[in-house]
Amino acid sequence: MIKLFQFKLCPFSRRVRFTLEEYNISFVTIDEIIWNKRKEFLAINPAGTLPVLIDEADDIIINNYAIIEYIEEKYSHLQKGISLISGNLRGKAEIRRLVDWYDNKFYNEVSRIILRELIDKYYMKNKTEDKSPNMESLRIAQENSIYHFEYLSHLISSRRWIAGDAISQADIAAATHISCLDYLNKIDWDKWSEIKNWYARIKSRPSFSSILEDRLAGFHPPNHYSNPDF
Amino acid sequence: MIKLFQFKLCPFSRRVRFTLEEYNISFVTIDEIIWNKRKEFLAINPAGTLPVLIDEADDIIINNYAIIEYIEEKYSHLQKGISLISGNLRGKAEIRRLVDWYDNKFYNEVSRIILRELIDKYYMKNKTEDKSPNMESLRIAQENSIYHFEYLSHLISSRRWIAGDAISQADIAAATHISCLDYLNKIDWDKWSEIKNWYARIKSRPSFSSILEDRLAGFHPPNHYSNPDF
Repeated sequence: MIKLFQFKLCPFSRRVRFTLEEYNISFVTIDEIIWNKRKEFLAINPAGTLPVLIDEADDIIINNYAIIEYIEEKYSHLQKGISLISGNLRGKAEIRRLVDWYDNKFYNEVSRIILRELIDKYYMKNKTEDKSPNMESLRIAQENSIYHFEYLSHLISSRRWIAGDAISQADIAAATHISCLDYLNKIDWDKWSEIKNWYARIKSRPSFSSILEDRLAGFHPPNHYSNPDF
Repeated sequence: MIKLFQFKLCPFSRRVRFTLEEYNISFVTIDEIIWNKRKEFLAINPAGTLPVLIDEADDIIINNYAIIEYIEEKYSHLQKGISLISGNLRGKAEIRRLVDWYDNKFYNEVSRIILRELIDKYYMKNKTEDKSPNMESLRIAQENSIYHFEYLSHLISSRRWIAGDAISQADIAAATHISCLDYLNKIDWDKWSEIKNWYARIKSRPSFSSILEDRLAGFHPPNHYSNPDF
């Protein structure tokens, strides 16, 4: 059985789960609190990062980019032509450009900051001194998010999905970052109706349901979080 | 003819050049000073980032990750089985894990800081106030580099190339970041003999020669920079 070491509010862990579910691949998850630096986990991945996939042959696959391309190459052909990095070479390049946009640009400017202030600091608390969220950092991340949400609105106003007619890794990357922010109630949905419509379509997919069922002790999501008709 | 918009001391631009040269693909380069925000360039890539590839069919391919996978899928089969993301699925995952290590972890902790302080600030100078390099930031980047160089030494002491027996995108990613630091004389080669041996093999490749010929006005590389027997 495939094992996935993950953290519930890690956008990259969510992305691997969403991808495996889209391909109907069975797997078990192991919740890893990376801040605890568990020895058994560090023996598997000395860098201590998530996600980590252990496949049926006990091969250890580390790193989001490596795992996503690995799943694509290994499993997409089993799905009767369904692919999450699909199309001609130009179409695939557009998907990968947007994946990198969310995994690096959006992450560094928005989701990493919010997750660091609210989640990392909460888990680090017992290790070092009490560290409250830096309100100025949170304000900057919220401000940065406006430009990103405008770009996302632009993309999905002209296309059915982010990178074209079919759902792709670009949607999965954007949706998993956004889902972490939404869990922390950091999105004002009244302002972003186009993104809300697209995200409602994501939320309605059976492959996304486990992400909507996630609950992290100490952090209650808003009521609309799990509701596809929010 | 393929066109590559690049900056001489951008590790990601260097990586695409190195890759195209390895595959014997003809291309022309266009030096783009991104800080100038040239309108014609922003019309091609509104995000203003490098590298950008325009292929024979005038398709615009944006983003390092997208370009590298695009070149791999389009051209590696023309090279009689030579591939820079090679091996079985596990081997490919190891290459991609290490590419991401250099393009994100090494970049964020070392090369981005040094390039920002020395290069970005130089090009931004005329736009805003005079900004000298922050010596404390440079010191932190140098300190971070020690742990990265120890890890690189570890990798190439047990393998011929970084990810295994064959040269791969992992070597190209590491080498292009390192080549930018070396141009700025930020590597103490006396301390890193294993890395030096590996980098000498990289420098000896004809595909790397154009990178060794790069000269950026205002920044003279040290004498050893171009010499494969340094």
